[in-house]
Amino acid sequence: MHTSDFINRISESETLAAARIARELKAQGKDVIALNIGEPDFNTPDFIKEAAINAINNNYSKYPPVNGYLELREAISKKFKRDNNLDYSADQIVVSTGAKHSIVNVVLSLVNPGDEVLLFSPYWVSYKAMGELSGATVVEAFAGVEKDYKIDADLLREKLSDKTRLVMFSSPCNPTGSVYTEAELKSLAKVLVDYPNAIIISDEIYEHINFIGKHVSIGTFPELKDRVVTVNGVSKGFAMTGYRIGYIGAPMWIAKACATLQGQFTSGACGISQMAAKAAVESDPKDLNYMQVAFEKRKKIVVDALTQIEGIKVNDPTGAFYVFPEVSGLYGKKMPDGGIINSATDFCTYLLETQYLSVVTGQAFGAEHCFRISYATSEEELVRAMERIKTAVSLLV
Amino acid sequence: MHTSDFINRISESETLAAARIARELKAQGKDVIALNIGEPDFNTPDFIKEAAINAINNNYSKYPPVNGYLELREAISKKFKRDNNLDYSADQIVVSTGAKHSIVNVVLSLVNPGDEVLLFSPYWVSYKAMGELSGATVVEAFAGVEKDYKIDADLLREKLSDKTRLVMFSSPCNPTGSVYTEAELKSLAKVLVDYPNAIIISDEIYEHINFIGKHVSIGTFPELKDRVVTVNGVSKGFAMTGYRIGYIGAPMWIAKACATLQGQFTSGACGISQMAAKAAVESDPKDLNYMQVAFEKRKKIVVDALTQIEGIKVNDPTGAFYVFPEVSGLYGKKMPDGGIINSATDFCTYLLETQYLSVVTGQAFGAEHCFRISYATSEEELVRAMERIKTAVSLLV
Repeated sequence: MHTSDFINRISESETLAAARIARELKAQGKDVIALNIGEPDFNTPDFIKEAAINAINNNYSKYPPVNGYLELREAISKKFKRDNNLDYSADQIVVSTGAKHSIVNVVLSLVNPGDEVLLFSPYWVSYKAMGELSGATVVEAFAGVEKDYKIDADLLREKLSDKTRLVMFSSPCNPTGSVYTEAELKSLAKVLVDYPNAIIISDEIYEHINFIGKHVSIGTFPELKDRVVTVNGVSKGFAMTGYRIGYIGAPMWIAKACATLQGQFTSGACGISQMAAKAAVESDPKDLNYMQVAFEKRKKIVVDALTQIEGIKVNDPTGAFYVFPEVSGLYGKKMPDGGIINSATDFCTYLLETQYLSVVTGQAFGAEHCFRISYATSEEELVRAMERIKTAVSLLV
Repeated sequence: MHTSDFINRISESETLAAARIARELKAQGKDVIALNIGEPDFNTPDFIKEAAINAINNNYSKYPPVNGYLELREAISKKFKRDNNLDYSADQIVVSTGAKHSIVNVVLSLVNPGDEVLLFSPYWVSYKAMGELSGATVVEAFAGVEKDYKIDADLLREKLSDKTRLVMFSSPCNPTGSVYTEAELKSLAKVLVDYPNAIIISDEIYEHINFIGKHVSIGTFPELKDRVVTVNGVSKGFAMTGYRIGYIGAPMWIAKACATLQGQFTSGACGISQMAAKAAVESDPKDLNYMQVAFEKRKKIVVDALTQIEGIKVNDPTGAFYVFPEVSGLYGKKMPDGGIINSATDFCTYLLETQYLSVVTGQAFGAEHCFRISYATSEEELVRAMERIKTAVSLLV
């Protein structure tokens, strides 16, 4: 009953595990508030649902090309130009079963055991799992709450080496909500120029959830031409997580490798979802502004509440739908059951067990003193959730 | 611009490559007949399309559980019992993005470099790619056209070893259309008992396309209890290739490993497709008998025509939608351009270049003297295709 070395290198995704445990507690009748999963609570917009229904009625039910329908890839090519000023031809685009799939394709296509994979930390939980799966050494460049969780050029240079094969980051960032500005990205790009062996994965899946208005793609800097893989998808911005469509724009040789890999793993992504995604990327991003407005109001509720709680430090995120508080100020305090808080994981367990509030420990994201709140839920629920945190902290002595 | 060792172990799927080349010739205006892809030409049945549309309208657009919606896994559990007399609880079922994905999950979850993966040959092209991807040694047990392409207990015993970690086969078989009888499977099971380290992947994706009426699952034999992974899906029997839903029933520890792997690669499969698949597996297989009737008529057209052609040997397949002729009788003959036919690959290239008829060389399936015809197309097209083969052979001297 032994499993392979390959799978023994990975474990259950910690965000998915948190979601699973919350579902199980709910099934037991507990009044659980789940702020653990990276998923908009909105329904998919009607015009996208209509496109999906049209695809069904028009029998988009045959094997799609492995890299995606040409008409979708052409729409994505135009979207990259329109929204991001990126030049990727349809041939440089590969459509996959979600952005996670897009990224793992790139990692497995490029990385050998012994290579280094550099993550901006806090990082999305799956980056590390994928790096480890490939047999690489994962290197982390960490910036804390006091730096708005954003790394700078000096730290980047310190962590890069001739062995660095991949650099991975997201902006807007999961789990911190931070958004890199053009000037910040430019300064990082200048450093990356000196490491021509490193490919950069720029994960822009939260592009459309941005409260400072301007999204910048690192792939637009000419000095990194041919070295940036831009990852995006429709899950977050269009409330289509269950449709499972992500995509990359990439140098041709990487796009080809990813399509080959995918051809042996899953073949093309669901054809109906692809046609729904086409409607999504062709739409005017302004049409979905209502989601962003709602997210920003919710963020304010969370940040304002947490700012009032002694022992919790919080910055003001400018994108995505996460807040990432730091809780080292609570360490050493005693819980009602006599246990002591020594880590964010302790605090998360305490929240879950005494308040039925499910969040995800920062440990999963490379930040052991933090935890992640996903505020993609109603304002009422967020108010109740913040009350529970306040109560939990007030019971510490 | 170097790709990883991992991806260098695999190449483009040869069936997908044949389909791609045929599409490219068609785009150049050639009158191509493509008998290269394993896909029913029927549209998805209306009741399944309705279920998919209902799923969209009912907002099945959130992340599904990684191993699949419980309601779908429960429906599959019932289907396994109803159609196959197999006992897999819902927890032992993992839903994936197509049966290919189901199989690669199992292979990567179980196999280490140095292990042996035993394939019944001719085999589905991706089995070998997956075995190689895992770093295993691929061992082939081959049976030719004179044995109806079915291996027997003696050959199986000869090819098994203490290093055999996986045994993979399909019945009904892609690419040969052969179906193993209960007695045949029983005699193989008796041999497998002596190799307790070997897990058996029984690929039953063509279950519903069977002209001898009785489908037998090797997982029903008590002596192999806890060692069989039964693979199935909705692509072939329900004309849903583009929906991308496959599934396994497996020992719990294997199901768990596959879900973990999938959680880091793709997360759960498309939610809308899952609800469509639920309607499919809940339906009475008899309702879709019209497809089987059509396939059997088409098979007769192909087999009758090929039987008339000197130099081509053909058996009478009893399932799937493939005929797998053997062409060694044509070796040494000269083509109009002066070249000599020395392999089935030569013959396939000749068919494509002079007759615009696209089939797949048996080389891809472990059978260098054969080629695969997919007859999942109209009777008219099949008649024209057989004429082209007849013409091509008549021009050989």
